[in-house]
Amino acid sequence: MMAKVGLVMGSISDWPTMQLAAERLTAMGVSYERHVISAHRMPQTLQTYGEQAAERGLQVIIAGAGGAAHLPGMLAANTVLPVIGVPIKTKALNGVDSLLSIVQMPAGVPVATMAIGEAGAKNAALMAAQIIGLREPAVQQAISDFRDKQRQEAEQSERQF
Amino acid sequence: MMAKVGLVMGSISDWPTMQLAAERLTAMGVSYERHVISAHRMPQTLQTYGEQAAERGLQVIIAGAGGAAHLPGMLAANTVLPVIGVPIKTKALNGVDSLLSIVQMPAGVPVATMAIGEAGAKNAALMAAQIIGLREPAVQQAISDFRDKQRQEAEQSERQF
Amino acid sequence: MMAKVGLVMGSISDWPTMQLAAERLTAMGVSYERHVISAHRMPQTLQTYGEQAAERGLQVIIAGAGGAAHLPGMLAANTVLPVIGVPIKTKALNGVDSLLSIVQMPAGVPVATMAIGEAGAKNAALMAAQIIGLREPAVQQAISDFRDKQRQEAEQSERQF
Amino acid sequence: MMAKVGLVMGSISDWPTMQLAAERLTAMGVSYERHVISAHRMPQTLQTYGEQAAERGLQVIIAGAGGAAHLPGMLAANTVLPVIGVPIKTKALNGVDSLLSIVQMPAGVPVATMAIGEAGAKNAALMAAQIIGLREPAVQQAISDFRDKQRQEAEQSERQF
Amino acid sequence: MMAKVGLVMGSISDWPTMQLAAERLTAMGVSYERHVISAHRMPQTLQTYGEQAAERGLQVIIAGAGGAAHLPGMLAANTVLPVIGVPIKTKALNGVDSLLSIVQMPAGVPVATMAIGEAGAKNAALMAAQIIGLREPAVQQAISDFRDKQRQEAEQSERQF
Amino acid sequence: MMAKVGLVMGSISDWPTMQLAAERLTAMGVSYERHVISAHRMPQTLQTYGEQAAERGLQVIIAGAGGAAHLPGMLAANTVLPVIGVPIKTKALNGVDSLLSIVQMPAGVPVATMAIGEAGAKNAALMAAQIIGLREPAVQQAISDFRDKQRQEAEQSERQF
Amino acid sequence: MMAKVGLVMGSISDWPTMQLAAERLTAMGVSYERHVISAHRMPQTLQTYGEQAAERGLQVIIAGAGGAAHLPGMLAANTVLPVIGVPIKTKALNGVDSLLSIVQMPAGVPVATMAIGEAGAKNAALMAAQIIGLREPAVQQAISDFRDKQRQEAEQSERQF
Amino acid sequence: MMAKVGLVMGSISDWPTMQLAAERLTAMGVSYERHVISAHRMPQTLQTYGEQAAERGLQVIIAGAGGAAHLPGMLAANTVLPVIGVPIKTKALNGVDSLLSIVQMPAGVPVATMAIGEAGAKNAALMAAQIIGLREPAVQQAISDFRDKQRQEAEQSERQF
Repeated sequence: MMAKVGLVMGSISDWPTMQLAAERLTAMGVSYERHVISAHRMPQTLQTYGEQAAERGLQVIIAGAGGAAHLPGMLAANTVLPVIGVPIKTKALNGVDSLLSIVQMPAGVPVATMAIGEAGAKNAALMAAQIIGLREPAVQQAISDFRDKQRQEAEQSERQF
Repeated sequence: MMAKVGLVMGSISDWPTMQLAAERLTAMGVSYERHVISAHRMPQTLQTYGEQAAERGLQVIIAGAGGAAHLPGMLAANTVLPVIGVPIKTKALNGVDSLLSIVQMPAGVPVATMAIGEAGAKNAALMAAQIIGLREPAVQQAISDFRDKQRQEAEQSERQF
Repeated sequence: MMAKVGLVMGSISDWPTMQLAAERLTAMGVSYERHVISAHRMPQTLQTYGEQAAERGLQVIIAGAGGAAHLPGMLAANTVLPVIGVPIKTKALNGVDSLLSIVQMPAGVPVATMAIGEAGAKNAALMAAQIIGLREPAVQQAISDFRDKQRQEAEQSERQF
Repeated sequence: MMAKVGLVMGSISDWPTMQLAAERLTAMGVSYERHVISAHRMPQTLQTYGEQAAERGLQVIIAGAGGAAHLPGMLAANTVLPVIGVPIKTKALNGVDSLLSIVQMPAGVPVATMAIGEAGAKNAALMAAQIIGLREPAVQQAISDFRDKQRQEAEQSERQF
Repeated sequence: MMAKVGLVMGSISDWPTMQLAAERLTAMGVSYERHVISAHRMPQTLQTYGEQAAERGLQVIIAGAGGAAHLPGMLAANTVLPVIGVPIKTKALNGVDSLLSIVQMPAGVPVATMAIGEAGAKNAALMAAQIIGLREPAVQQAISDFRDKQRQEAEQSERQF
Repeated sequence: MMAKVGLVMGSISDWPTMQLAAERLTAMGVSYERHVISAHRMPQTLQTYGEQAAERGLQVIIAGAGGAAHLPGMLAANTVLPVIGVPIKTKALNGVDSLLSIVQMPAGVPVATMAIGEAGAKNAALMAAQIIGLREPAVQQAISDFRDKQRQEAEQSERQF
Repeated sequence: MMAKVGLVMGSISDWPTMQLAAERLTAMGVSYERHVISAHRMPQTLQTYGEQAAERGLQVIIAGAGGAAHLPGMLAANTVLPVIGVPIKTKALNGVDSLLSIVQMPAGVPVATMAIGEAGAKNAALMAAQIIGLREPAVQQAISDFRDKQRQEAEQSERQF
Repeated sequence: MMAKVGLVMGSISDWPTMQLAAERLTAMGVSYERHVISAHRMPQTLQTYGEQAAERGLQVIIAGAGGAAHLPGMLAANTVLPVIGVPIKTKALNGVDSLLSIVQMPAGVPVATMAIGEAGAKNAALMAAQIIGLREPAVQQAISDFRDKQRQEAEQSERQF
């Protein structure tokens, strides 16, 4: 069966961050496929991936990239599916470059941008699940359960404080 | 019939920006309701709005706010619906404060953040339509048509250049 | 007897920083209660805490949070007590996000913002004591003594230099 | 009768901003005295003002300054009263310099920092009133009424939207 | 005869800035063609343009773009010709977003980045001429003459000072 | 035979970064000479080097510098050869100072600026090769081969993912 | 008689700012010569000016420049006289680029950096006078009188407040 | 005999940085006294130190401070001697706060600001020597010799490269 989320990153070095998205997708019961597609090294693959994403049955694309992070925006330019962008932390600028390159898209082609780094990767998965949950009650329930659980954990750390 | 998108802003002064989201939602054939809900002046209304959004039939919330922009994140904390955040341009910091207050959400509660200001407001509407389009072919078609049209306009400005 | 200061943080991971506030409150002879209340995971608890703070006898709230740090501002929105905000240092942005999310409150709901990180946590306790000291001469004397002591320590490090 | 708040600014050119604090203090029923004390042109006056503030009966100092804004911190160094700092917007750096010069105080001498510019000036007055309100029920009531009023205004702009 | 420089911009609204590059190319005797190619609205045109640039006889590409400025980097990804990037000034962030999106390219695909705005546009033309001048003595002479002239103008403004 | 690229750095401490440029030049078959020329300690050497670069047969200068990084711009002021600037990462500001000091050149004297740090050093070599490749088919072929190779490596990391 | 201060700027367009330095030098009784010397257009003039400054009898150099502001640092590299740098406000970055390019000099060659823009230009003149005043009692007295006067003006604006 | 330079720092924790200034002063043959004077803990000592500096025979003050670094500016406000400021690197903001708090002085009271951290401390000593060298040929000669030596070291690292 076709995966529902395309989890794409610009470089294999982004995997330690993006893995956190993968884990959460699995925990939410959302299937995904994962790919390394460099916007600058594999521009044709990027374009084809974007163009075929909807017809291949994907519902959401999560794209993580760092620096002059063109991957999320260029995928968004080639699909009508919602694209979620994760700014990867960078050496010199800590991901400020990634964040601005992803979030400051011109009018016409949005990218749903998450926080820099690990929190952003986790949240990308949750946002994808929230979107898919609009169509699939089981996924929305999983989000709802996850929210309950994290509230309970927070409450427990409060009680044990 | 219930609106599909809740278009919320922290202050009536955000309307000139958020109006651009409203116009695009209409153009995409997506119904919306609009509200002024100040996170800091009407915290209970905010919470109630978030809690009831899903059961009231909304599918997506768009929230615009400036400065210490808590509205999108606090709505997101109270609903499992996808929340799209629009950082409003501010006087002193040009919306950098709004952007960071919206995008840097902790793991667990994502906000789909758009560009600062007018481009962000327009794109929030398109992102909402892309999300709703997953369920409603007519909306996805509208997005697709919009994309064609803006490509043609760009091509025409290229031809006439 | 009721505590005078509510020491609240968004996550148990903020405790190593906020502990410095706790220690200084004790040193100033100011009683406090401590809580973990996540603005995004426990929004209802947050609201209730804010609403009941004054009637429960608290005089000042100190709130530490990082990233899109909504805790101090949302507490301030729900109480007429003075709220002191401590921006916690973050991984990617070193607390610049926390600082702007806390300090850039809109007109109508102030948060008394301290420096990023440990210095801010310590100073939050001193500011709370300075406020409470307006009513309680013993606390004002403790601040005065603390000031003398830190001046003497500085002078001693000058003399031994 | 002695004023309760000392409203101090580094230059007469800060008055258009700080005037907003003055208006709100009056609206809250909090008496104030106003002064222009330049940290760099009148350092001795600054020191004397800080040293005598408490014995003269002031309860809170509000200090607005721009650029290398030393006034709030140096006043704080000379008094045990709570000092509230307002970063004035500057030409080149829009008040980021003012903000960092005021908020990044070292451990030991806190300044309760507000937002940059007009919102910060207004909020400084409210924070002063919230502090004084701990001792004076009438002032706390005024804050409470002000909160009600601004909530009602926000609700009305929502209803008329 | 084929133009030597491809002068490309992301939007017709970039022309007032990029026009300054065009004027300088003409002044240096360097032929150019000009195009509006939106990275996000016309991704296929962008890719084709990049792929065919070298075989069509172009020697240098100058690309101006603002915000999440993907045009220069994506052109660079599709050609072995040198690509010069001009960060266009933006409303909210003054072109800091454009600069970082252009200059922070990952290892493997460089973009020769110029200053933000008008100075950058002018310099892009000069850099293109300096590159082409390596092969064409007349162009190098034109650069050399331009340098002499601007030195003389500076000296004259010194003499008349 | 004369080297084609002058690889210059402001301090021997820049070599660990600039070495990456040297390695890539060698891999592209582009000869280079390397020099340590401090703009501030050896201003006359800098000037002479710039003035003589073209007549000595160099075609491109790559200059790496950190902080108030004047080397690339001052070399550019003294030659009509294209100068490529590499902002070296700095201790306090992570190379933001280097980047702005290099890229924000005034109209009239361009520096082709690369990313901060290691990626920038590698890309400087590739940009130099792309420029030289306009005249030398073997170098352009080497770039082309390099691009193929890095695309294949990216594809392979995708296949093995 | 030889002027004591060399007042140098990178472009005639810096004069409206640097004029404020000139006026204050005159008011302090400090003679000056003024020059437009572009670091990038007139590098040899810059070097000669720096090298001959001391022997020509100048005691201090004030240099104003904007953007990649190399003038102050390169003058400092060529003289043992104290060089005072004034960061000129720029269009895109408001002078942050100028500030960092001037202040972040490497160990070995200092530039005494002033505030961005007009305040910096005025203060450059005062700093020059303070330095010259170490040798010339009349100039130190002028500074002292100026300080008295500005204190009195501040006190008067306080009295009339 | 009275020292010529007053080397002052806000905290003993600044000594590892400021020590580099001390070493260079000694190497230049410039006598100094060293003090820890906290602007916020010892405001009266600060003021007295500033007021008496000139009559005590000091010629230059070097002041290092971090965060809301008020020490250099407040010393400058109390003396007509030239004050050189060294922004100490800070934990959260890397010294950007220190830099802006020191350099952005208002018109009327200049601080000669150096680079952030160690380079700044070294350069503060050199700047002090350059200023004192105007009166004392031996110190100017020491600077001149130091310049020669550092040029030779740079040339040697060039030769051995």
